[in-house]
Amino acid sequence: KMASSSFLLFTAILALVSWQALASDPVLVNGFVCKDPKAVTAEDFFLAAKLDMPRDTKMSKVGSNVTLVNVMKIAGLNTLGISLARIDYAPLGENPPHTHPRATEILTVLEGTLYVGFVTSNPENKLFSKELRKGEVFVFPQGLIHFQFNPNPYKPAVAIAALSSQNPGAISIANAVFGSKPMISDDVLAKAFQVEKKTVDWLQAQFWADNHN
Amino acid sequence: KMASSSFLLFTAILALVSWQALASDPVLVNGFVCKDPKAVTAEDFFLAAKLDMPRDTKMSKVGSNVTLVNVMKIAGLNTLGISLARIDYAPLGENPPHTHPRATEILTVLEGTLYVGFVTSNPENKLFSKELRKGEVFVFPQGLIHFQFNPNPYKPAVAIAALSSQNPGAISIANAVFGSKPMISDDVLAKAFQVEKKTVDWLQAQFWADNHN
Amino acid sequence: KMASSSFLLFTAILALVSWQALASDPVLVNGFVCKDPKAVTAEDFFLAAKLDMPRDTKMSKVGSNVTLVNVMKIAGLNTLGISLARIDYAPLGENPPHTHPRATEILTVLEGTLYVGFVTSNPENKLFSKELRKGEVFVFPQGLIHFQFNPNPYKPAVAIAALSSQNPGAISIANAVFGSKPMISDDVLAKAFQVEKKTVDWLQAQFWADNHN
Amino acid sequence: KMASSSFLLFTAILALVSWQALASDPVLVNGFVCKDPKAVTAEDFFLAAKLDMPRDTKMSKVGSNVTLVNVMKIAGLNTLGISLARIDYAPLGENPPHTHPRATEILTVLEGTLYVGFVTSNPENKLFSKELRKGEVFVFPQGLIHFQFNPNPYKPAVAIAALSSQNPGAISIANAVFGSKPMISDDVLAKAFQVEKKTVDWLQAQFWADNHN
Amino acid sequence: KMASSSFLLFTAILALVSWQALASDPVLVNGFVCKDPKAVTAEDFFLAAKLDMPRDTKMSKVGSNVTLVNVMKIAGLNTLGISLARIDYAPLGENPPHTHPRATEILTVLEGTLYVGFVTSNPENKLFSKELRKGEVFVFPQGLIHFQFNPNPYKPAVAIAALSSQNPGAISIANAVFGSKPMISDDVLAKAFQVEKKTVDWLQAQFWADNHN
Amino acid sequence: KMASSSFLLFTAILALVSWQALASDPVLVNGFVCKDPKAVTAEDFFLAAKLDMPRDTKMSKVGSNVTLVNVMKIAGLNTLGISLARIDYAPLGENPPHTHPRATEILTVLEGTLYVGFVTSNPENKLFSKELRKGEVFVFPQGLIHFQFNPNPYKPAVAIAALSSQNPGAISIANAVFGSKPMISDDVLAKAFQVEKKTVDWLQAQFWADNHN
Repeated sequence: KMASSSFLLFTAILALVSWQALASDPVLVNGFVCKDPKAVTAEDFFLAAKLDMPRDTKMSKVGSNVTLVNVMKIAGLNTLGISLARIDYAPLGENPPHTHPRATEILTVLEGTLYVGFVTSNPENKLFSKELRKGEVFVFPQGLIHFQFNPNPYKPAVAIAALSSQNPGAISIANAVFGSKPMISDDVLAKAFQVEKKTVDWLQAQFWADNHN
Repeated sequence: KMASSSFLLFTAILALVSWQALASDPVLVNGFVCKDPKAVTAEDFFLAAKLDMPRDTKMSKVGSNVTLVNVMKIAGLNTLGISLARIDYAPLGENPPHTHPRATEILTVLEGTLYVGFVTSNPENKLFSKELRKGEVFVFPQGLIHFQFNPNPYKPAVAIAALSSQNPGAISIANAVFGSKPMISDDVLAKAFQVEKKTVDWLQAQFWADNHN
Repeated sequence: KMASSSFLLFTAILALVSWQALASDPVLVNGFVCKDPKAVTAEDFFLAAKLDMPRDTKMSKVGSNVTLVNVMKIAGLNTLGISLARIDYAPLGENPPHTHPRATEILTVLEGTLYVGFVTSNPENKLFSKELRKGEVFVFPQGLIHFQFNPNPYKPAVAIAALSSQNPGAISIANAVFGSKPMISDDVLAKAFQVEKKTVDWLQAQFWADNHN
Repeated sequence: KMASSSFLLFTAILALVSWQALASDPVLVNGFVCKDPKAVTAEDFFLAAKLDMPRDTKMSKVGSNVTLVNVMKIAGLNTLGISLARIDYAPLGENPPHTHPRATEILTVLEGTLYVGFVTSNPENKLFSKELRKGEVFVFPQGLIHFQFNPNPYKPAVAIAALSSQNPGAISIANAVFGSKPMISDDVLAKAFQVEKKTVDWLQAQFWADNHN
Repeated sequence: KMASSSFLLFTAILALVSWQALASDPVLVNGFVCKDPKAVTAEDFFLAAKLDMPRDTKMSKVGSNVTLVNVMKIAGLNTLGISLARIDYAPLGENPPHTHPRATEILTVLEGTLYVGFVTSNPENKLFSKELRKGEVFVFPQGLIHFQFNPNPYKPAVAIAALSSQNPGAISIANAVFGSKPMISDDVLAKAFQVEKKTVDWLQAQFWADNHN
Repeated sequence: KMASSSFLLFTAILALVSWQALASDPVLVNGFVCKDPKAVTAEDFFLAAKLDMPRDTKMSKVGSNVTLVNVMKIAGLNTLGISLARIDYAPLGENPPHTHPRATEILTVLEGTLYVGFVTSNPENKLFSKELRKGEVFVFPQGLIHFQFNPNPYKPAVAIAALSSQNPGAISIANAVFGSKPMISDDVLAKAFQVEKKTVDWLQAQFWADNHN
C-alpha cells in the first residue's frame, strides 16, 4: 500500500507552482520548473511588467512590439488558462497577420486607432474587419488569422489584449511561411502562393535574416 | 437516413452566433439567442465599450465600478472562454472581496496604485497580497476570494482585468452572504461568523436595501 | 531520435499513480508523488475511511465535521475528477457558508434533516434553499456560496456528498475573510461589510485564533 | 447588427435550466428540455429521492437495484458533471460487470460487505479487487469494467456511489453483448468468446427475454 | 416545479443527433440540426464516403483534393471530437501551407511519397520536415502551419489523415491572406510580407478569382 | 521570489516532449519520459509504421491484428488527443467486442468488407450495425461496446481507424471478463451471465492461457 505519508501536502492553490531539489537540475512539470507548494508566495502571481510604459517599435520591421505576460513570466499562471499583453504600434505600424494556436484574443485600444480584422476558415475566407477607436473592444476567435494596423501616419497606438491560454503561442504568418529555419522548399511555396520560385526565394531572403517575434 | 441537405452550413467561425426565426420567441443555445451563421458580421465580435472613459464610482457604497465585456455584450464570445473588464476605483475605493466561480483573473493597473490580494483554500487560508503600481500585473486563481483596494485618499485608480471565461460570474461575498434574496437564516450566519444574531440582522439590513453588482 | 525503448510502459489505468526512485526526494506529477505504474495495486484505489462512523463535532465552533476522501487520500483518484465526503452535524450545527473553487457538489441526507441553500451570482444573489429530509438530494453548482444547517436542537444529522473534482478545495467564507493569515486589511473589510473597523478587528480576533476547516 | 436587447439575460447559475414556449414541442438543448432562467427555482436542484429507503431487488435476476440521480432526475445538474446513486444488493446479489462510458465512480458501503473489482485495459487485464466493509471507499476509473458482489448469503448490502458525469451511462456487459436488440451475430460472439455458436444462441435466449438495467 | 415527465428521454448515445419538428425551420444545437434521439439509427454514424476512390485533382491549382468526413457529413460525430480525411495529390501536387484552428492531425501515406512539415511558433519558427514513404506516419500539432507535397513528377500520392475535432476547420494560408473576401488592405500585407503594394495587389488578383478549399 | 532564469524555455510546440538528465532514472510527466524541448526534432512526430503492410493474423485466435500508433509510439502525440491504427482481419476474422475507455473511433475500410456495430447503453442496448464496403466510414462513440467482423470466408480485410485520444486504451470484453489476472470470482460471472459456474470455469480456462491484445 502507498503510505499516505509519502504524499506532499497539496496546498490550496492547486500546486500551480512547485519545486524539487534534485541535484542541480530542476524538474519540469507541464513543461515548467516546479516549486515546493509551501514555498509559493504572492511573487509567484506577480510581475512588475511596466505595461504602462511605451515600448520601442523601432527594432521592428513591421512597426510593433508585443509585451506578453504568460506562464513563462508568471509561474502562478500554470494551468489557469489566461495571459495578458500590451501591444505598441508605431505610426503606420502593424501586428502583422498571425494566429494563436491555442487561444482566443480579446483586445481593447488604449491609445490611437486600429484597423483590425480576422479571416474565417475555408472555403469562405471572409474578412471581418473594423476600425477601432480608443476604448473599443474586438474579439479574434481561436486559431484564425488576424491582424491590427495603426492607420495613423503620425501617432502611435497602444492596445491591451487578453488571451485564453497561459501559453497561447503566436505564429506570424509571413515569418513562419517565408522565414522558417530551415526554409520550406520553394517548390511548395511557389505553388501555394501561385508565384515564381524566384519570387519565393526573394521573399525567403527577406525573412531569413530577420526573424523575430 | 438523415439527409445531408437538412443541415445548415456550419461556417468557419464555429457558429458562435446564430439566429433562428421561429414565431416571435428566440431559441436559446448555450443560454443565448442564436443567429444564422450566414448573418454573422464583424459587429458580432465588436463592442463600442468606451473602456478608455472613467466610470462613475459615486453610486457605489464601496467606491468602485466594474465594466465587464462578456458574452452578454459580445455575442461572438460564446464558447471562446475569455472576457475583459475595466475597473474604476474612487480614492479609498475598493472592489470588495469576491470570487469568480468559473474563471481566473489577470489584472494590470492603468492608473494609480492598488493593494490587491487573494486567500487560499482551507485549512491554510493564506493571504497573498501585494501593492501594485501602474503597469504591474497580478493573477487571481479561479474560485478564490480576492479584492483590490485603492489606498490613495486623493486619487482614483483604474485597472484592466481579463477573465478566463466568456461568462465568469462574480459573487461579492458581503452581498451574497448578508444581502441574498431572500435572506439566509440568521441562525446560520450568526454561527458561521461567531456573532450575535442581532449583529447579523443589522448587517443584513445594510445589504438588503442596496444589493448591486 | 527518441528510442522507443526509453519509454516506460504506460499501463492500462492511465498511469494515475506512479513512483520514481530518485535519491530520497520524491517527484511530483500534477502536484502528487508518483509511483511506478507496475507497482499500482487495488490499495491505490481504496480507503478504509470508516465513513459509516459518526465523527466528533465537539471540536468545531460551528458544530460540523467534514471527512473528505479526495486525491490526497486515494492516490488513484488523480485526474479522475471526483471525490466523496461524509459530513456530521451536531444538533444546531452547520457546515457554514463556503465555496468549492473547482467543483459542483451533490448531497444526500443519511440521518436527520438539513436546511440547505446556495446563493446565485451578482447582481441577483438569489437564495435557493430547501429543508431536506432523510434520503433527499440537493445540488450546489460550482463556485457558488452554499451551506447546510441542522435545525434540530436535539439530534445530529449526517450527509454524504460527492464533488466533481479529485481536489475540489473548500473556502469557508468567514474564515477566509476574517481569519486569513496574515489578515486582510481592516480598511478593506470595513468598507466591504459596511461596518466600523473596530467591528472588523473584533471579528478578526475571533477567527485568527481558531481557523480550521 | 445584433441588438443586445435581443439577448435574454443569462442568470448567475449558468442557465443550467431553461425553457422555451414554442407551440407544443419543447426545445432540446444538450439533449434536454430548457426552462426560462428566470423561472428556475430550488426545486430544479432538488429530488425527493428517498435514497434512505431499501429498494426491492426481487425483480432483478442478478439481485441488485440501482437508483441513479442524474440530469434526467435533477435538471439543474446539466453541465455540472456529477451524479449520485444508491445501490441495493440482495444476499448474494451483485451489480454485474459493467462500464460507464463517460464517468469514474467512487463508492462507499452503507450496509453489509461487498466484494468489488475492476479490470485494467489490454493487454494486462489485471483484476484489482477488494472486499469492502461498511464505511470503506473504492474507486472505479472511467470506462473500465467493474462489479460489486454481496458475498453474504443472508444479509443485504447497500452502497452509495458518485459518478463524474451528469449522464454517466451504464453498459451491463452480459446484457449488451448477449441481449442487444437486435442480437449481435452469433458468428461474432462465438469467435470472441471461443465457444460454440449454440452456446451463444443459448446465452442470447437468456438475455433477450429480460434485458433491463 | 419542473415535472420530470416534461423531459424527453436522453438515450444512451448522448443525444448526439436529435431533431425537432417546429414549423419548417429546423432548430440548431451546437450549430447543427437536431434529431429525436429515438429516431437515431446506424445511418447517423455511417457515410458511404468512397474514401477508397481516387479524387480528381485537376480542378485544383495546387494539385490536391481533400475529402473530409466531419460532423457535417456524419451527424453522429457531434461532440465526439474526431474526423477523418482522404487527401489526393497530383504529381508535384500539394496540400499547401494551412492550419486547423481546433485540431491536431495524424497522417499516413497510402500511395506514393510525401514531403511533409510543420513550423513551430514564434520566435523560433523551426521547420520540422520529413519525407514520408507509404505506410509511414506523421503528426501535425494543433494550430501550427503545415503542408504536404508530392515530390514525384509522374505519380500521384494518397494519404489518410485523422483530426482531433468533429469540426477541425482549415485555413489555407495563401487563400486566407491574399484571397479573403473582402481583401485585407494592401498596406497591411505589403508591410507584413515586406514587399511592394503592387506585388500584394498582383497576389490578391490571383486568389480573389479562385478561392476554394 | 522565483527567478525567471530558473525556467527552461518553453518552446513553440507546447513542450510535448521533454527530457531530464537525472542520474540514470528518467522522469515521467503525464506518465511519459520527458525530453529537453530544445532537443525535439521531426523524429518525435514521426513513425516508420509501415501501415501499408499486411499484418500476420495467424497468431490471433480471433483472426485480427491491431497496429496502434499512439503516444507510446510517437512521443510528440502527448496531450494532442489523437491516435491512428491499422487493423488486419483474416477471412472470417474479427476485432471482437471491445471498448475504448477514453476515445471515440472513426473507421474506414481499405480492403474487403466488414460487418461492424456498436451497442448503446442500458436499458435500451440497441445494436447499431452495418455492412461496410471499401471506402465507407463508420463511427463508434466513446466507451460503447463495438466490433468489426470480416464475413468473407476467403479474403482478408483491412481498415484504418482513428481514435480521439493519444492513449485511448482498449478492453476486449471476453478477455477482460473471463481472462483477467487474477480471475473474477466465478460466483460473480455465473450470476452475471446466467450460466452454471462450471461454464464460467470452462470459459476462464480458455482465456487464462492466452490473453493478448
